[in-house]
Amino acid sequence: MVKYPQGVSPFVSGLKQPQWSKAAPASTAKHRHRRGVNFSDRGMTLEQQLNESNKYYLSQGLAVVHKKPTPVQIVKVDYPKRSRAVIREAYFRQASTTDYNGVYQGYYLDFEAKETRNKSSFPLKNFHPHQISHLQACLDQNGICFTVLKFVTLDRYFIVPASVIIAAWQDPDHSSISLETIVSKSIELECGYRPPLPYLTAVDRLIKDRK
Amino acid sequence: MVKYPQGVSPFVSGLKQPQWSKAAPASTAKHRHRRGVNFSDRGMTLEQQLNESNKYYLSQGLAVVHKKPTPVQIVKVDYPKRSRAVIREAYFRQASTTDYNGVYQGYYLDFEAKETRNKSSFPLKNFHPHQISHLQACLDQNGICFTVLKFVTLDRYFIVPASVIIAAWQDPDHSSISLETIVSKSIELECGYRPPLPYLTAVDRLIKDRK
Repeated sequence: MVKYPQGVSPFVSGLKQPQWSKAAPASTAKHRHRRGVNFSDRGMTLEQQLNESNKYYLSQGLAVVHKKPTPVQIVKVDYPKRSRAVIREAYFRQASTTDYNGVYQGYYLDFEAKETRNKSSFPLKNFHPHQISHLQACLDQNGICFTVLKFVTLDRYFIVPASVIIAAWQDPDHSSISLETIVSKSIELECGYRPPLPYLTAVDRLIKDRK
Repeated sequence: MVKYPQGVSPFVSGLKQPQWSKAAPASTAKHRHRRGVNFSDRGMTLEQQLNESNKYYLSQGLAVVHKKPTPVQIVKVDYPKRSRAVIREAYFRQASTTDYNGVYQGYYLDFEAKETRNKSSFPLKNFHPHQISHLQACLDQNGICFTVLKFVTLDRYFIVPASVIIAAWQDPDHSSISLETIVSKSIELECGYRPPLPYLTAVDRLIKDRK
């Protein structure tokens, strides 16, 4: 077995996140321990659940949705002879869009995945201003835009329409959205097996509500 | 002035491409010389023309289209104290999708940008099998899918519908698409100023043709 610096294999995408990343670090001892006893999501992070779901949807010809690669500013590249290029200096950049987008039955889907360990509300500081303006711009183009929100401690999943997030973001009196608001204005998802997170059923409802 | 290895600033994205990249290297002496006398595209690569056009379309509220970040396999990251994380070892990965996607008036757009220095045909080896299957999957979901094709030497630009590319790709007798076929089955674009490449006019025609 290869020993990686930081004790974590960087091949497992999403485990090491830059500071500004919104995904909760998945490698704390506490989290690991808890995951060991929680079988409902089969130990997957939200990102893994979504990636598996997207793979399933793609294989079934149901939708084409991909996570965008982590944007990286490449500064130095070595081109060793007889082997492939090695990036020797690069930095994480802040993304200017959301993490996921794709197409489903002619509809443009655009969403962000967010986790919180809070139990009663979702802190809006998890969003960056550029993500909010990106969601608004996609809404203006008639895209289906939302956030897949996971309350890790409660093991509950919600599809929160982008309009709900944007409205809360614009309200100067609010720094978070309460769980009650989320329950009343979102679509709750039940975890499954294939796909792990059947979010297209919620998308169907968003499309229906829009009509 | 900072001297970079390879003599090319890696800050200028797209100049140094990994082996499997489909973009023609923009840094050959011949190309540079020619660009010095060709003012029609104001010295921009196709990628720059598209990125500028996307910026313009976004600023005008006309469409939300972004280039996806270059996918990179991160192997080693340093976390120096009091400064941001530095990627110390990473490799270019092959993308599993096309380079650009987004939303325009509710339509999902998905496209690849390709340049060729050929004068009479476009070699299909510029496509990777996964790009073809991605375009087919997006077409199956009713996306608007195409290739923005630039004949560098001719200074001509075409929006080639994905269906034309896929049909040629599936024909075992063909290794390229002739310029005549492209002229007859594509929409030619005229370079502009703002945006440099007004591809949405061609998208309007693709949408109209589909109806």
